[in-house]
Amino acid sequence: MKSLFLLRDDITYLNFGSFGACPKEIFDDYIQWQTLLEREPVQFIAKDGVEYVRNALSSLANFIHCDAGDLVFVPNPTFAGNIIARNIRLEKGDEILTTDLEYGAMDRTWKYYSQQIGVKYVQQKIDLPLVSKEVFLENFWKGHSRKTKMVFISQITSSTGLILPVHEICEEAKKRGLITFVDGAHVPAHIDLNLSTLQADFYTGACHKWMMTPKGSSFLFVRKEFQSQLDPLIISWGYESAAPSGSQFFDYHQFNGTRDFSAYLTIPKSIEFMEKHNWRTVSQACKQNVLNAAPSFCEALDSQPLAPLTPEFFGQLCSAEVKTSRPEELQKLLFEEYKIEMPVMRHQDKNFMRFSFQAFNTMAELDYLNDCIQKIKRETSLLRVEG
Amino acid sequence: MKSLFLLRDDITYLNFGSFGACPKEIFDDYIQWQTLLEREPVQFIAKDGVEYVRNALSSLANFIHCDAGDLVFVPNPTFAGNIIARNIRLEKGDEILTTDLEYGAMDRTWKYYSQQIGVKYVQQKIDLPLVSKEVFLENFWKGHSRKTKMVFISQITSSTGLILPVHEICEEAKKRGLITFVDGAHVPAHIDLNLSTLQADFYTGACHKWMMTPKGSSFLFVRKEFQSQLDPLIISWGYESAAPSGSQFFDYHQFNGTRDFSAYLTIPKSIEFMEKHNWRTVSQACKQNVLNAAPSFCEALDSQPLAPLTPEFFGQLCSAEVKTSRPEELQKLLFEEYKIEMPVMRHQDKNFMRFSFQAFNTMAELDYLNDCIQKIKRETSLLRVEG
Repeated sequence: MKSLFLLRDDITYLNFGSFGACPKEIFDDYIQWQTLLEREPVQFIAKDGVEYVRNALSSLANFIHCDAGDLVFVPNPTFAGNIIARNIRLEKGDEILTTDLEYGAMDRTWKYYSQQIGVKYVQQKIDLPLVSKEVFLENFWKGHSRKTKMVFISQITSSTGLILPVHEICEEAKKRGLITFVDGAHVPAHIDLNLSTLQADFYTGACHKWMMTPKGSSFLFVRKEFQSQLDPLIISWGYESAAPSGSQFFDYHQFNGTRDFSAYLTIPKSIEFMEKHNWRTVSQACKQNVLNAAPSFCEALDSQPLAPLTPEFFGQLCSAEVKTSRPEELQKLLFEEYKIEMPVMRHQDKNFMRFSFQAFNTMAELDYLNDCIQKIKRETSLLRVEG
Repeated sequence: MKSLFLLRDDITYLNFGSFGACPKEIFDDYIQWQTLLEREPVQFIAKDGVEYVRNALSSLANFIHCDAGDLVFVPNPTFAGNIIARNIRLEKGDEILTTDLEYGAMDRTWKYYSQQIGVKYVQQKIDLPLVSKEVFLENFWKGHSRKTKMVFISQITSSTGLILPVHEICEEAKKRGLITFVDGAHVPAHIDLNLSTLQADFYTGACHKWMMTPKGSSFLFVRKEFQSQLDPLIISWGYESAAPSGSQFFDYHQFNGTRDFSAYLTIPKSIEFMEKHNWRTVSQACKQNVLNAAPSFCEALDSQPLAPLTPEFFGQLCSAEVKTSRPEELQKLLFEEYKIEMPVMRHQDKNFMRFSFQAFNTMAELDYLNDCIQKIKRETSLLRVEG
């Protein structure tokens, strides 16, 4: 399977989760779009590109089950988070309920904008390991108060790699009259995503991770009633447009200055690629491998799984807490000495190692990882907490 | 020369000015960076890429004569304009002095943010045609009042394609104690740019126009004393960074979420390309051709040059007013019937046609344009003002 990708052969690539990886077929499509752009830049950027983007939006909408009119492309979920956080109509004293497992760039975004309007960003502490969905939900909602106006939550967390029950969260939030924003950065083509049943008000997902498109292709979904509330993050021609398209949402957010938007246009090819290669089956096998590999990985780290080892909590990512005082050094050693690409991430006051399992990974690679962990334990002090 | 580029052979491409065009050598470099990225996405994006970006910044800084630490890459000048307009420390009642010749996306940006803080965006009406530098300066400064705190001005205007005397503007602004922001979207590698002598406080330029890099590569220059005033347009990991680089300016603005930043990395190749192909000489010849071609172009349009035909006002762009009630239709006809790519732009209450002259253009193409204009005059009503 690795031959389908452009990845280096000499690296045990266990960090698909951070930035994905682009199969050759999708990369070739990327170059073709970029070449087409350069053949006639004006026609591509100012004219045909609009239709190409609409076509890619339709294709994506079909894949994630929503109306294409409720989607715009953004470079990444952080960009989408900034659009929402900057524009959300909350008032001084209101609260946004979230978990303490969110992505660092999103936390920074919410903190920045919350502070500006005097809103409280409530990072509810989640007890790890998760015990059950019910216990998680009870734990989460303890952060709710009568000032809570909004919920922000990841569908799959980043450093801890856990699937969270966002359907139940959105359903309960609706009952409580709260706005919901789900960060699905790690979701599309990783686990099933159906925006018509999820009922989130805002949703963002990356296509450049599990959909394997080139970097800089992601989307923002906004429920119709919220679309008119969002000013552009970057004011450009689409603001007070001289040639409105009929959708202010599209005009405000889709184009903002000259750039190469070819990455967005590869989405139909990505979907075609996944169909052609039976990607659901491939993904299913990867998930089973994650569940199979998790116990020995956790054991190697003298740790325990962060949730019950079931498909309810685990997809193609598995994190475990790692006792180290020097996470960056540990990551560097894994790469330089053992040619293992794997993140060691600080999160709050803990550190986590996370492996991803994609089509090109093998159980032998995880055995190798465990061997290396043992070796590092024997030969260095990097897998101890010092001082 | 056209064989150096990827442009279609069947199009008379007279609109290099809008989005540039990428020579094959630079495009190949782009693909090489993108391939390198896909060989090991984590190393590229999270580690080596930082050094690649610094290297490209150094190369650019050397080219435009400034300190690399005062530069960050942005996708386009509009993005840069948004960073400045959003963060500029002005107070209610203050005025920003600009011309009525500015780029539409920038006007929209300033209007949006000016309104938010109650600042007046003063679009001083510039009398056309320009008569002399002195008359222009006198005309411009009439817009100054004791409330003026800032000047925003293009070094080369977009729809009118004129070089404005920004050195003199910045010098005078300094005397009057005003902040200066120069929009040099059309400047780098088009006319000489030396940021150390210009003395602007903020400057933005596109590399994807006359430097011929792929789309989405531009820069923002900020004089050191203003750097700490600028919050990121997109909050991400660099805001309250856990691993600060030593430059808050770099951390706040250079990286904001996962994207393919390969376009920035082609800048050294662009500079190498221009040296290899004696681009100064090429550009000089193009400018002479613009001056030679301008009279008959203006005559064909029953118009007159927008400024004295000298290198003081004209580079590789030449605009003329066009009497039409249907500019979009005129542009469409030129492309579809005559295979001429050329913009017909509404600006305020007028319309302008603009030709660009790049290495691959010929005087014969401009003769062909004039013939087509005559034909359109004879055969349609598009070159008349109706009703």
